[in-house]
Amino acid sequence: MDRPEPTAQRRTRLTPEREGELYGAVLEILREVGYDALTMDAVAARTRSSKATLYRQWRGKPELVASALRHQKPVEVSAIDTGTVRGDLQAMLCVADDAQMEKDAALMRGLGHAVHTNPDLRRALRELLIEPELEGLHAMMRRGVERGEIAADNPALDYVGHMMIGAFVTRPLIEGRTPDCVYLADYIDAVMVPALGL
Amino acid sequence: MDRPEPTAQRRTRLTPEREGELYGAVLEILREVGYDALTMDAVAARTRSSKATLYRQWRGKPELVASALRHQKPVEVSAIDTGTVRGDLQAMLCVADDAQMEKDAALMRGLGHAVHTNPDLRRALRELLIEPELEGLHAMMRRGVERGEIAADNPALDYVGHMMIGAFVTRPLIEGRTPDCVYLADYIDAVMVPALGL
Repeated sequence: MDRPEPTAQRRTRLTPEREGELYGAVLEILREVGYDALTMDAVAARTRSSKATLYRQWRGKPELVASALRHQKPVEVSAIDTGTVRGDLQAMLCVADDAQMEKDAALMRGLGHAVHTNPDLRRALRELLIEPELEGLHAMMRRGVERGEIAADNPALDYVGHMMIGAFVTRPLIEGRTPDCVYLADYIDAVMVPALGL
Repeated sequence: MDRPEPTAQRRTRLTPEREGELYGAVLEILREVGYDALTMDAVAARTRSSKATLYRQWRGKPELVASALRHQKPVEVSAIDTGTVRGDLQAMLCVADDAQMEKDAALMRGLGHAVHTNPDLRRALRELLIEPELEGLHAMMRRGVERGEIAADNPALDYVGHMMIGAFVTRPLIEGRTPDCVYLADYIDAVMVPALGL
């Protein structure tokens, strides 16, 4: 499926380094004060850029935040192809170390309320973060079906995203702990591997 | 495991009807304004009771809200025992109709931010809602192991709560839809039944 290029790549005259700095500042502010209190003014001030520059690159705050979140992801799911579904799933996870996961959890707390109440942010997160991730997962699954690892009519194929994202969001709720690499690897083997019949 | 009786049953001189009215008002206010803006004053005013009465029954706002959420649950998981694990899991879900699920989703939106930022609310929700639910799920699983339906060392036993709660929280994120009865029943058959080897 064709995906449009991210806004920043279409219109930018920023260097990749400068873009990285801007995104870093956005995530820093997000962790500190949360989404609602984050302003374009604060981003402009911390990065010593003008608001006009920011609005030339990103339509608004939801797009800037979603792009920053996407930028910090250490790996594109679509780039993973280990030759087995289990290998692909494990490769998705363990690129991030536990310190990074802890920072991610702080980000999610910073976004918590706004995700529920702000449709623009939800749309931007879905377009820029969730859908590319799901698209990558579904491509993994298609390859697994083509290789004969997964039955084409396995009903768990409809829930690959639910299982994967569910593993992340439920650990803090149930265990009061951040999902780390060991936990996620164990969850994949205990839940996803048997559900997919691998 | 012995669980202490809920505070309201230990100290109350309220009738069950009056208690139900109070809880109903709390949930109504929660859906309207969210957790942060809900005050004991507002609950007292809407239910024509005194704040002293409220504080005699519940330690504070987190306990009152968690008790109200628990009270509206249509069924105690611990009361379910259909004779099979799959039957028990399905029986947990389909007691609530879709209109109730939609109202529950509105409640969760009302709680969204506060759950992330308020440790007292998180503790109260864990003690009064999540732990009894998990305890009930684990009792189901123990019976399944005793009947020989599930291998005692099945690694998915550690993730029953993650799978179940994950099904609820991920559907809005991934599909932008409220989890309904048909979806949850399908998820159980597609994910939990094979993971548990039923």
